[in-house]
Amino acid sequence: MPKGVPVAGTVPDDGLTTRERRNLPVLAVHTGPGKGKSTAAFGMALRAWNQGFNVGVFQFVKSAKWRVGEEAALRALGDLYTTTGQGAPVEWHKMGEGWSWIRKHGDNADHAEAARDGWREIQRRLAAETHRFYVLDEFTYPLKWGWVDVGEVVDTLRSRPGRQHVVITGRDAPQELIEAADLVTEMTKVKHPMDAGRKGQRGIEW
Amino acid sequence: MPKGVPVAGTVPDDGLTTRERRNLPVLAVHTGPGKGKSTAAFGMALRAWNQGFNVGVFQFVKSAKWRVGEEAALRALGDLYTTTGQGAPVEWHKMGEGWSWIRKHGDNADHAEAARDGWREIQRRLAAETHRFYVLDEFTYPLKWGWVDVGEVVDTLRSRPGRQHVVITGRDAPQELIEAADLVTEMTKVKHPMDAGRKGQRGIEW
Repeated sequence: MPKGVPVAGTVPDDGLTTRERRNLPVLAVHTGPGKGKSTAAFGMALRAWNQGFNVGVFQFVKSAKWRVGEEAALRALGDLYTTTGQGAPVEWHKMGEGWSWIRKHGDNADHAEAARDGWREIQRRLAAETHRFYVLDEFTYPLKWGWVDVGEVVDTLRSRPGRQHVVITGRDAPQELIEAADLVTEMTKVKHPMDAGRKGQRGIEW
Repeated sequence: MPKGVPVAGTVPDDGLTTRERRNLPVLAVHTGPGKGKSTAAFGMALRAWNQGFNVGVFQFVKSAKWRVGEEAALRALGDLYTTTGQGAPVEWHKMGEGWSWIRKHGDNADHAEAARDGWREIQRRLAAETHRFYVLDEFTYPLKWGWVDVGEVVDTLRSRPGRQHVVITGRDAPQELIEAADLVTEMTKVKHPMDAGRKGQRGIEW
């Protein structure tokens, strides 16, 4: 695919230079029933890291065991930045273990409240431009379940300052979020080994 | 999603233990017109790396400029293995620059021959069990264009020794390959910023 060639006749009359247009903030949504939604978001984080973009991952899931490989690898890349200056810092936060910025952990019994805590922290970080690349992993679920208000999320994202990229993953992305997004990809399952009774595979699933 | 719970009534009567079934070799195909096919494959490579699986990436594309971020990050992870022992080795080979194992580079004018050279090397590595996790990036195109015979590819993959995982990416995966695969995901474009005349975004597209 040629790099960055827009559809003919659609170059916007926005007065921006190509360079400016290459640095616009992107809101991406990976949705659908297939695999690869989160995995592709973490693949994108590799590109962000290499561009020197501060990466923040926020996992809105109770159990985080499926992401151990990505977490270990991205944390290793963040450590590499600390020791050698290559790439960028990486932070990784998990709702399932109690958000790290909240003092009182406990058993996180109230998932709705925990999800709202996560979202409020993301609002603070967006306002402060803490990261340049955010992964809000499985964030569609708290939206779907009404734990976090989708209208508020869309308003916050639309008005975020600077050039902060945000990738949201999870099935059943709300229509309002899809409308606000710049890039939406649906992952569809064509065939999955578990359909044939196979177990999750080490090094493939986690 | 609960980890590794197969569809009820489909546990195969194959005499394998759960542990053995977790270590079966997987052939995955990421196809479709949407984004994230290669990106998800590189995300999977993070998991493989973390499991200590030797990673080999083979890019069947003339220009490799779109993968600079993933390449830099995965190479950094491979270097980390060399210096600290964390993770696993990573090799990254590009057809576009002339395969590194071929002495005579030149301008690679004959792409069909270059693609066949790449495939022959992959056959040798599969036979030797050189890697544990292979990404054959954009490999569907040489198949589609008839440069590499899909029947031979399927035969080689079906009979590969050991527990080598292979991920093949690209649009228009041939039906024969889909039938041979364990895991097939189709990425569908729902919305893309280039449709609105936006340029490829730094840190998002490369």
